[in-house]
Amino acid sequence: MKKVIHVGVLGLGTVGSGVIHILQERREKIFLDTGYEIRVKTVAVRDLEKERDVSIDGIVLTNNLDDITDDPDIDIIVEVMGGIKHAKQSIIKAFYNKKHVVTANKDLLASYSTELLQLAHENACDLYYEASVAGGVPILRGLIDGLASDHIRKIIGIINGTTNYILTKMSQNGWSYDQALKEAQNLGFAEADSSADVDGLDAARKLAILANLGFSMNISLDDIHVRGIRHVDKTDLKVAKKLGLTMKLVGKAEMSNSVISLSVAPTLLPNHHPLSSVNNEYNAVYVHGQAVGEVMFYGPGAGKLPTASAVVSDVISIVKNMNLDTNGYSLLKEPQSYILKQDQEIFSKYFIRILLKDERGILKKITECFMNQSISLKEIIELPLDDELVEIVIVTHRTSRYQFERTLRLLEDVAGTIKSYYCIEVEKENA
Amino acid sequence: MKKVIHVGVLGLGTVGSGVIHILQERREKIFLDTGYEIRVKTVAVRDLEKERDVSIDGIVLTNNLDDITDDPDIDIIVEVMGGIKHAKQSIIKAFYNKKHVVTANKDLLASYSTELLQLAHENACDLYYEASVAGGVPILRGLIDGLASDHIRKIIGIINGTTNYILTKMSQNGWSYDQALKEAQNLGFAEADSSADVDGLDAARKLAILANLGFSMNISLDDIHVRGIRHVDKTDLKVAKKLGLTMKLVGKAEMSNSVISLSVAPTLLPNHHPLSSVNNEYNAVYVHGQAVGEVMFYGPGAGKLPTASAVVSDVISIVKNMNLDTNGYSLLKEPQSYILKQDQEIFSKYFIRILLKDERGILKKITECFMNQSISLKEIIELPLDDELVEIVIVTHRTSRYQFERTLRLLEDVAGTIKSYYCIEVEKENA
Repeated sequence: MKKVIHVGVLGLGTVGSGVIHILQERREKIFLDTGYEIRVKTVAVRDLEKERDVSIDGIVLTNNLDDITDDPDIDIIVEVMGGIKHAKQSIIKAFYNKKHVVTANKDLLASYSTELLQLAHENACDLYYEASVAGGVPILRGLIDGLASDHIRKIIGIINGTTNYILTKMSQNGWSYDQALKEAQNLGFAEADSSADVDGLDAARKLAILANLGFSMNISLDDIHVRGIRHVDKTDLKVAKKLGLTMKLVGKAEMSNSVISLSVAPTLLPNHHPLSSVNNEYNAVYVHGQAVGEVMFYGPGAGKLPTASAVVSDVISIVKNMNLDTNGYSLLKEPQSYILKQDQEIFSKYFIRILLKDERGILKKITECFMNQSISLKEIIELPLDDELVEIVIVTHRTSRYQFERTLRLLEDVAGTIKSYYCIEVEKENA
Repeated sequence: MKKVIHVGVLGLGTVGSGVIHILQERREKIFLDTGYEIRVKTVAVRDLEKERDVSIDGIVLTNNLDDITDDPDIDIIVEVMGGIKHAKQSIIKAFYNKKHVVTANKDLLASYSTELLQLAHENACDLYYEASVAGGVPILRGLIDGLASDHIRKIIGIINGTTNYILTKMSQNGWSYDQALKEAQNLGFAEADSSADVDGLDAARKLAILANLGFSMNISLDDIHVRGIRHVDKTDLKVAKKLGLTMKLVGKAEMSNSVISLSVAPTLLPNHHPLSSVNNEYNAVYVHGQAVGEVMFYGPGAGKLPTASAVVSDVISIVKNMNLDTNGYSLLKEPQSYILKQDQEIFSKYFIRILLKDERGILKKITECFMNQSISLKEIIELPLDDELVEIVIVTHRTSRYQFERTLRLLEDVAGTIKSYYCIEVEKENA
């Protein structure tokens, strides 16, 4: 008789049904690899009557989470219901009941990974969450094991598929933001409430997870300078294109001597920057290590089967650990202390678009705002609108975030309306 | 007092001295992560008197490998001396003496990984070899753990830095093959005897390692269809460029229902193919899984510190396993049986350059050779040389390798000299 490990799944949405599908389809192969048949025993759902797009023959459905977290038959819990409160409660309960947990829940992990990893360890349980960042791309393992010997100094990437899809379509097809967002929603890349994606919070959560693992820290979400793409206009993309720049929502974490800076922001990349050609729902993350130089991980950032395959790979890792009786050790590290880099020390070029009344001397006033902060300008482009209004786009040379933000305030006083502004990521040295 | 794990290093060339450098520099960090100080006790070298570019204070040098493989103090052996015979003997001896092994030795692993993994397992020892493929890029871990749940169907990539450097320089700078090879040797990317690199054998070995892990097989090097870049001419690159094609030495392994095909060959890629922009000594490998779709790993394919960082990450994994007393389980899988795909079933477009006497009717004779094998032609380009000679480049539509090779034989009979021929990789669907 085959040895069986029972799994409980919390949530039967897209990823949950993908997990059940893969566990069914790969049953034999997983048995060959681990020596166990992995069987889904119970799935917690909100609506017991809803039609499902995956076979649930022989699986118990429940709407009571405790039926899973308290079931002594169940060894591994897959949490794919999302949200923070109930997910956290269930995971904590799972650990107290000596069950291992796989989750794709970035909202939860971004804020509570250290606490939950500690609790898992105390209970000799595993907590894995590869699927929480970049879908099916095995980047967390790459950071934890593959680059274990290295000193990670920078992590930069495109880690939100929804906004990358929107920006790709706006840039390539000339769509408006609203049109691209709607299409993303139609295709299932964006949820009905897309604010976590478009406002950059989803990317910020993933950046926190990456930085915590890469830098061995316990970073707060508040430490991340976050701006989303909600106010990006196709005019910005059009002008940027003429300047040889492509817009991406870029997450970036840098560390030097325990001083860190973290940001998520729509960013203009030179066309030859390798991230500029990562399109649609794809994700790509560059990791810069002192010894390795730079390595890059690329793949689908979301989607039912890619995300579910990462979840099931985590389940397999746990089963292998169970075979060896070594659960509870994997990701926990003592968090290092850190200092946040000051805005005076964070440098970039900037792109800024300003709406002006077309008055005599107005351009001089504008340029004086920059000169006042010792910011030198690289380009000034006028986009006439009508007799009375003009838009200008200014590209600065490198300046600090502090000086730039002071300049923004000065500009507001000079009667211009600031329509948009973006960092320009300077060229990479290595690729 | 700190707990210490002693390491013995076989070989103190580029990678060996990189390993010692990283172990010294990251000593504190590794202690924090593993609870052990990892100390290099003994290094086996050929020449005891040679000047070294790394501090060997407190390290014993020996020219007797047994001083390391027989030392009861040593727990982990790092084999970076290369070659097959002595390396294999030492590794086998290490396992009998219950020592774990990290190696970067692709020559050895390509042929003996199953045997050595089995022996490691029987002795409860680890055998890790992340550094053997794509230098510092953690692709083997990605295949083994990160994509453990998935069904890998295709692995395609650029896995030899030397040839990629040569082809990049020939294509971008118009250099001759000899000039590019010489520069690669000056920069240390190519060895004095570069034949394993330029003839494709090095890439074939890495492809065997990747395919064995990705497909769970025990593939023989003889199963790989190997062609190198020794006969690539800059004329080929020039004509290809006009056709929108870039040449790369591509390794490709495909599997469908236990039928596999494996090849390493100079290949023409459409300019928008993502591998076409991987330049110089960089490596990139795409892995196609049934669930995940495609993921890509990219980074430096060689180099002292990238390769050494992969070796040290493997050492850290072993120390973590030692902490948990779980050595000897990691990479071993029961090899699956396979059938080699027949040449009749392997399809590609082809680029072929033929030197002809400029005689009346010769072009008709040439095209008849293709028609004879039912190969239809996409383009014919004439490159006049002088009054008597002409070169023509023919691009075919998709045809089987079998038909193409029969055509080659027919062409030889029609008095043309075949100067070169290359597969054209058809466009990728997913990226």
